[in-house]
Amino acid sequence: MTKRKDFSLSCPIPIDRYPNIQIAHGGGGKLMNSIIEKMLLPAFDNEILNTRHDGAVLEAAYSKIAFTTDSYVVSPLFFPGGDIGKLAINGTINDLAMCGAKPLYLSVGLIIEEGFSTETLWRVICSLKESAKTAGVQIVTGDTKVVEKGKGDGVYINTTGIGIIETDMTIAPSEVKPGDAIILNGDIARHGIAIMTLREGLEFENKIESDSAPLAESVYRLISEDIEIHCMRDLTRGGLSSALVEISQASKTHIQIEEASIKLSNEVRGVCEILGLDPMHVANEGRFIAFVNPKHSQKALKIMNNYGEASIIGFVKDDSQAVVTMKNLLGTNRIVDMISGEQLPRIC
Amino acid sequence: MTKRKDFSLSCPIPIDRYPNIQIAHGGGGKLMNSIIEKMLLPAFDNEILNTRHDGAVLEAAYSKIAFTTDSYVVSPLFFPGGDIGKLAINGTINDLAMCGAKPLYLSVGLIIEEGFSTETLWRVICSLKESAKTAGVQIVTGDTKVVEKGKGDGVYINTTGIGIIETDMTIAPSEVKPGDAIILNGDIARHGIAIMTLREGLEFENKIESDSAPLAESVYRLISEDIEIHCMRDLTRGGLSSALVEISQASKTHIQIEEASIKLSNEVRGVCEILGLDPMHVANEGRFIAFVNPKHSQKALKIMNNYGEASIIGFVKDDSQAVVTMKNLLGTNRIVDMISGEQLPRIC
Repeated sequence: MTKRKDFSLSCPIPIDRYPNIQIAHGGGGKLMNSIIEKMLLPAFDNEILNTRHDGAVLEAAYSKIAFTTDSYVVSPLFFPGGDIGKLAINGTINDLAMCGAKPLYLSVGLIIEEGFSTETLWRVICSLKESAKTAGVQIVTGDTKVVEKGKGDGVYINTTGIGIIETDMTIAPSEVKPGDAIILNGDIARHGIAIMTLREGLEFENKIESDSAPLAESVYRLISEDIEIHCMRDLTRGGLSSALVEISQASKTHIQIEEASIKLSNEVRGVCEILGLDPMHVANEGRFIAFVNPKHSQKALKIMNNYGEASIIGFVKDDSQAVVTMKNLLGTNRIVDMISGEQLPRIC
Repeated sequence: MTKRKDFSLSCPIPIDRYPNIQIAHGGGGKLMNSIIEKMLLPAFDNEILNTRHDGAVLEAAYSKIAFTTDSYVVSPLFFPGGDIGKLAINGTINDLAMCGAKPLYLSVGLIIEEGFSTETLWRVICSLKESAKTAGVQIVTGDTKVVEKGKGDGVYINTTGIGIIETDMTIAPSEVKPGDAIILNGDIARHGIAIMTLREGLEFENKIESDSAPLAESVYRLISEDIEIHCMRDLTRGGLSSALVEISQASKTHIQIEEASIKLSNEVRGVCEILGLDPMHVANEGRFIAFVNPKHSQKALKIMNNYGEASIIGFVKDDSQAVVTMKNLLGTNRIVDMISGEQLPRIC
């Protein structure tokens, strides 16, 4: 089969000789070349990648760049609302956005298990392509390794991203100040619960879908509308509670939140009750919190509401304890802690 | 045990509660935090990493940057002359050097198998630290994932690197020109054979050590001494033959090399003969070829000889066939091809 220029999701997969990935597909020889030439280059097609150099050369007339990495080992690879490819693009883009950066370039490193279906690999590559396109980023360099059967699990993906920082604001835990309003961009715990219900074989009338989404556009809007953002964090592994505790510890501030302001769908609440999970600890893939100057909190809320159902969930108190407290629905305060064990392994 | 500031290789490992890695060490909670705070931050200690943000923010007043990624899945993790940590630093640095870039920043993504020895993880982290220090690069951002026992193999490492390009030369296959001299920086096939003899339990009087080494300094010297370099490639998976064939195909040129000029140690030659391997196909981790303006070939050779035993192995012919030919020791020419299957899996 010849190299396809007219790449699309509906194309038949371009490698038909090997229905499954062989160890030699990772060997640096002809078979690996066939993956690169017939799958990766046409899928991620761009001038920088097409030079096929050892690395990508980027014109970078920027004074500050953001740089972040994540490996994705989610199981199963496909789930309601997303798949490993979508996660791998959005997760890394979101980490860049949390630095106040506009994501531009990504690398993709694949660790494929021998025997993995070539067609499934193609679906994952298509998802990477589509998600990158949606988010407006280019995949400019990559790497493929194959490990023996039983030494991997289908495919693991590392994406590493570069973004440009155009704002002069420093967005970091060190900038968090007493009085800051904390805004959350939507309901929590959907990603973790979507994976969990799939694993447990639970079925509901309204299927719970992962919240996986790129956050860069909403962050870019906040910045371009001059919202004074002190810190941002996306809520991934460890959920809302880990993000809050990490920021509280790093900034040495007391964060006070209110349970009633934290949105949770009825379906997710139900599953959490059945499984005995605290939604504060459950992973998200399209949610973030922004610590903003309280004078800007209403304007920021309005902007964030263009992209979801945002709410102000709390504020930074004027005392020096590094602690997170939550006023619960009964009006009493409890300390919010990180989860210490592992609630949902391989969630991202 | 408290956080160590006086980090060194001879320190006892800083986590003594868990002799083996638990799934929860990848869970985004307290246990993962303990790896980050007690192992990774003290080991890779630098201001950028210590901000503990979602990504690293880099001051980048450069007009061109290079960006490259590689995942390392070498088995076994430790071998004569190196280990997965050393490979992961040098391999990515070398890819940056091949773009003519000076390596500055690396990300490290760990995929650890549940049950992996915490002490061995510490040895790998120490090797990452030492190799980064030797090469003068900073590890500025990272990620840790843990997968279930039997879904990984000890530890896989992705490193992604950023370097700055200070030269105006374009160093790429497209720049290869008829007449170019091809210089190789040392004897070939040592890395692959070091791993292979270890796996096969072969013992020799003179132990064969991997050639793993950072190449950035010698490349930097070539550039700063105004050698007109048209293309460079490090010889990793697929060996010297893959690198030559790839460049020949990408540049649509006929590359002619001479077997007598390619250095090979007697030990490596012996093992290749015993195992029936073509050293041209065997992986290297500290070897590269440079295509240079023939007027500069002697000066380039002299510079490269400061860092190893370099030799001019061939030149680019003035015809339009995209082919690599080698004059062998008997004086006849043969076509050099890529390896099509997998000779040595999990070599890097």
